[in-house]
Amino acid sequence: MKNEAPLRVGIAGVGTVGASLISMFLNDQERMTQRFGRQIVVTGISARSRSKDRGVDLSEMAWFDDPVALAKSDNIDLFVELMGGEDGPALASIRAALELGKPVVTANKALIAKHGVEIAHLAEQTNTQFGFEAAVAGGIPIIKTLREGLGLAQVQRVYGIMNGTCNYILTRMTNEGINFQDCLKDAQELGYAEADPTFDIEGFDTAHKLAILTSLCFGCKIAADQMYVEGITRIDQADIKVASDLGFDIKLLGVAQRTPDGIEQRVHPTLVPKTSTIAGIDGVLNAVSLETDHVEELLLAGPGAGGDATAASVISDIFDCVRGTHVPPLGLPVAELEPYDKARMREHEGGYFIRLNARDIPGALAAIASRMGESEISLESVIQRPDLVVNDPETKSEATRTVVLITQKTLEQSVRQTIDRIAADGFIVGKPQVIRIERF
Amino acid sequence: MKNEAPLRVGIAGVGTVGASLISMFLNDQERMTQRFGRQIVVTGISARSRSKDRGVDLSEMAWFDDPVALAKSDNIDLFVELMGGEDGPALASIRAALELGKPVVTANKALIAKHGVEIAHLAEQTNTQFGFEAAVAGGIPIIKTLREGLGLAQVQRVYGIMNGTCNYILTRMTNEGINFQDCLKDAQELGYAEADPTFDIEGFDTAHKLAILTSLCFGCKIAADQMYVEGITRIDQADIKVASDLGFDIKLLGVAQRTPDGIEQRVHPTLVPKTSTIAGIDGVLNAVSLETDHVEELLLAGPGAGGDATAASVISDIFDCVRGTHVPPLGLPVAELEPYDKARMREHEGGYFIRLNARDIPGALAAIASRMGESEISLESVIQRPDLVVNDPETKSEATRTVVLITQKTLEQSVRQTIDRIAADGFIVGKPQVIRIERF
Repeated sequence: MKNEAPLRVGIAGVGTVGASLISMFLNDQERMTQRFGRQIVVTGISARSRSKDRGVDLSEMAWFDDPVALAKSDNIDLFVELMGGEDGPALASIRAALELGKPVVTANKALIAKHGVEIAHLAEQTNTQFGFEAAVAGGIPIIKTLREGLGLAQVQRVYGIMNGTCNYILTRMTNEGINFQDCLKDAQELGYAEADPTFDIEGFDTAHKLAILTSLCFGCKIAADQMYVEGITRIDQADIKVASDLGFDIKLLGVAQRTPDGIEQRVHPTLVPKTSTIAGIDGVLNAVSLETDHVEELLLAGPGAGGDATAASVISDIFDCVRGTHVPPLGLPVAELEPYDKARMREHEGGYFIRLNARDIPGALAAIASRMGESEISLESVIQRPDLVVNDPETKSEATRTVVLITQKTLEQSVRQTIDRIAADGFIVGKPQVIRIERF
Repeated sequence: MKNEAPLRVGIAGVGTVGASLISMFLNDQERMTQRFGRQIVVTGISARSRSKDRGVDLSEMAWFDDPVALAKSDNIDLFVELMGGEDGPALASIRAALELGKPVVTANKALIAKHGVEIAHLAEQTNTQFGFEAAVAGGIPIIKTLREGLGLAQVQRVYGIMNGTCNYILTRMTNEGINFQDCLKDAQELGYAEADPTFDIEGFDTAHKLAILTSLCFGCKIAADQMYVEGITRIDQADIKVASDLGFDIKLLGVAQRTPDGIEQRVHPTLVPKTSTIAGIDGVLNAVSLETDHVEELLLAGPGAGGDATAASVISDIFDCVRGTHVPPLGLPVAELEPYDKARMREHEGGYFIRLNARDIPGALAAIASRMGESEISLESVIQRPDLVVNDPETKSEATRTVVLITQKTLEQSVRQTIDRIAADGFIVGKPQVIRIERF
């Protein structure tokens, strides 16, 4: 391989990850040649602003205003897409490169969540490599592990913490007793959360990543729009405190699993036992855990974002392209992928944490407990303590008591119906808080 | 690829892993063909006993009394070595297969720790694939991650729990307050420890695995014999209790790291903060953590042994061979590997946990503390409690008090010299316990 011409890379999008990547290519040529016996050089770039200082020297690279022109350029052998956006120039340029048989590497989870199957199909048709390790859990090699590292093992359940913003907020709420809004403000000041944080804190970012993992784990088509998604904005200090007393932490998890009813895909705040490894994943860290038939449980934890960590995943994909590693992008050839067989969320079975604002009148707790009994929901714990005060504007007008119920394994639809009945009885005020419990 | 002839596999050694592997090949042909479009069939086997019932049907496979003859047989395309042993038939048959250009997959850590560089060289010369994912941390894809998953990231420190027997014993000692001997006996009864457990509990198994990781992490030759190795047989309940009170768990870690003095390789019981992820890896689980320049920390946790998990790693190596993935076995071409540059253990710098049996005479503690001061060793904690009783036959003849000192960062040689001086002063009885502290 020693005397091959250098591999010429074109990069569209020079933000944090792009700048890290270019800096590695500029500074680590020696390491690269040592590992590969082949030079890899960035010959073309495309970005929004030509004048912005990104801390790296772009003077030796050809500039393209149009990323599609870069993707098609005869001066590049491999195209790296780091612009983001689920359609538009990102999609057009990836398609253009693959149609010409040029390998593509991207970190764009939104795009893969929406168009992954189509792109995988295009890559297959042109026998071209398509890598997206950096799209899920930044620096963690979860895509490689799922595509190449499990042998014949079949995944039964995958779950993970895949959004650093949410995990940072929940960790600080837990460790420092700060409320959600203050944590979010700090996260924004520290650059861990966007000015408009909706996409992260409402769970959509996690949903995109989970949809990609679901396809790789279960050999089905990507179905990002067929997912139960709930963010962390309604998590109160009272939830965190009671959960903690009962031996649980609260994490925003993405979970997908095989059930008799189909495949469940869900993103929601989750009570996890403090003794579980996933509970120990704090701050901006990410982690993904795989439960399989052959390998009981495999957990990968590491940085989910950050320029250098994400760039390292982009480079490992580029190396695979150079090496000639050929794996179907979604693990199986597209023709072998099954349609996504959605399990109904109301068929979900698990434990539930239910927090209610009960009116401070005689018989309220008894009425609530009776409704649970009627639905044959077994309660593991009932907590009513004077110090549990929830800052809920809806309840300010009258005296209420916070009651927390922990159920044993029960059906989601049974929990929902029962809570509706309790609300109709008039013994509670405001919207009940329901958090799912996951045991590992 | 669809119409290629089946890949014919020969397996030498049909113990737990071999039987799991054969059973997967017999039962999962459909999954295999779906993933690969190519059949993989076991055509030849070799094992010690022909008549032993292994729960799998071997009748369709050609039997070889001599594994070397199997490796050389024209009826196999790929050789799987699962016999074990660092020399002898395992080495001879691996050499024979590679010399004929047949890919080899093995789970034999002892052999790679001793002959890995020579075998990697042979594989290179004949342009043949050589896989050993199953040799380190059973079902955890750590070899693939190091060889293919890190891009250009350079490892600064690698550490891990790589022996399930030791971790099982230490976990039970911690959670149940049982002493070492009773835990070992239980582990033997449950099949988690061998009848002769020396190899595991004295740290040699971990040392073999660490030596392989060191080579892959730091681009140097394997040097399993140049390592500080200390097992867990001297860990007392008193150590575990005091460590726990101070916020630490005790784990048997293998640690390798770059230092200004060279590369440290060491296996020893280690105090790790309870808040660290590695502290949460309990029972027979394994975990390996990588600290790199680009990816701050990456942790992989999962089963370190077991037939199915280890067989899954063997199969993932076989799949890589079928796919044609070509990576130098030790990450770099053998000619590029540097000699192992050993850091002297006495130059190791870290915190220390020191437990002494001080004579119950006035001035003992003052004398010990003075010696520490003379050596400029700063103490973080000093614990002397009446309830700390150590079951040490050497101290039974006289009244002693257990004293535990926790040092701040200091040099190993300074700690050793100071303890020698304290012993010479005559204020302590028996051998002091010294456990290194690692912070993550």
